[in-house]
Amino acid sequence: MTQNIYDDPQFFQGYSQMARSIGGLDAAPEWPALKAMLPPMQGLKVVDLGCGYGWFCRWASEQGAGNVLGLDVSEKMLEQARKTTSAANIQYARADLEHLDLPTNSFDLAYSSLALHYIKDLPGLFGKLHAALKPGSRFVFSIEHPIFMAPRNPGWITDAEGRKSWLLDNYQMEGERVTNWLADGVIKQHRTIGSLLNALIAAGFTIQHVNEWGPSDTEVVARPALAEERERPMMMLVGVQR
Amino acid sequence: MTQNIYDDPQFFQGYSQMARSIGGLDAAPEWPALKAMLPPMQGLKVVDLGCGYGWFCRWASEQGAGNVLGLDVSEKMLEQARKTTSAANIQYARADLEHLDLPTNSFDLAYSSLALHYIKDLPGLFGKLHAALKPGSRFVFSIEHPIFMAPRNPGWITDAEGRKSWLLDNYQMEGERVTNWLADGVIKQHRTIGSLLNALIAAGFTIQHVNEWGPSDTEVVARPALAEERERPMMMLVGVQR
Repeated sequence: MTQNIYDDPQFFQGYSQMARSIGGLDAAPEWPALKAMLPPMQGLKVVDLGCGYGWFCRWASEQGAGNVLGLDVSEKMLEQARKTTSAANIQYARADLEHLDLPTNSFDLAYSSLALHYIKDLPGLFGKLHAALKPGSRFVFSIEHPIFMAPRNPGWITDAEGRKSWLLDNYQMEGERVTNWLADGVIKQHRTIGSLLNALIAAGFTIQHVNEWGPSDTEVVARPALAEERERPMMMLVGVQR
Repeated sequence: MTQNIYDDPQFFQGYSQMARSIGGLDAAPEWPALKAMLPPMQGLKVVDLGCGYGWFCRWASEQGAGNVLGLDVSEKMLEQARKTTSAANIQYARADLEHLDLPTNSFDLAYSSLALHYIKDLPGLFGKLHAALKPGSRFVFSIEHPIFMAPRNPGWITDAEGRKSWLLDNYQMEGERVTNWLADGVIKQHRTIGSLLNALIAAGFTIQHVNEWGPSDTEVVARPALAEERERPMMMLVGVQR
């Protein structure tokens, strides 16, 4: 089973104070790019893998989705989601994405935001998801970028002129990465971009769009902390067709 | 027109002494992975974009390709290719890949080894190549990895334990990179992986395989200098279908 770090009190406390937890989709700088990769929601049957607080589920519902299934491994997340982002056509359920169990040929869109880098058997998940999606449907997700995940000791070095470089190593060594982010011992699964895309292709998906998200000049002016995201990508946004 | 650095005497002199110039395909560590992405050559009409010394053209011919067109911007390269790797069914021609001019619907396979990172208008090249390829045909190429190309000052930093990290910055800033490799002022065109793949998709290709080449343990034992290629990828191998 996936490490359920979100139910760790220290982690949950930290996570609940993040801008994107409080402010929802609009507080996530990558949301406009991700949204641009989504089809019109009207009437769609949607599944959200790792729904967290349910911000996307609520948005999809408001956009006219037929119905929305939000899955998460964390009880605390689901509790919060049910409190703040519920609607008649949203259903929340606890699920371990490591062992996805969905009806076949049932969804028009699968969505996942920053959850898949916790999954060990990603090829297995892609296979099950392919079966759960209808032909012609879409799967749009964000995931931590392998450049961000790979290093033994992720971090920056600053040169004499104040320019930052990201210390990249260990890129080809796929597998577990343990970081102390919000809580100690958060386990993520590093894989190369090649492995990620090849696993999607092997599951039967067609790659439609790959976006290694970075901020625009305007975004950096509005939020100067985003400047470092120009030096190395932190997230990948991927859109595929079933 | 593409910078014709290969006809610079200093560059050509340096290039001609590289293992892959002397030893051909088998001296290139990524060749087995690239070869595995190729279809059987028998009877195929093949075009090689940036054929250099013609090692691939000769191999394709020996494998039974119907005929092989090797294109390069460098007169010196073509001269060398005609001397050492010619065969009745190989034709060499000078061509600026920045302004590709090929008959439509004519080739079963396009190949390119470490040439496309010199091209400024890669979307334009992909469009013209798509038109030159037959439906169902393949395009297999290697290109310098964006991680390798992005930095202002490409290089390593070594920590107290002797472990190397690659100094990555400038990743999101696409465009010209000037390096001093074999000669001063070699101009390459950096673009993100996302841009590269999206340009292929926009041209009408279907992504089939992406390999961010790295050495196996056996290869590192045989050639210890390859060890650093595990820390960050230097090349990308991409296979697409028309």
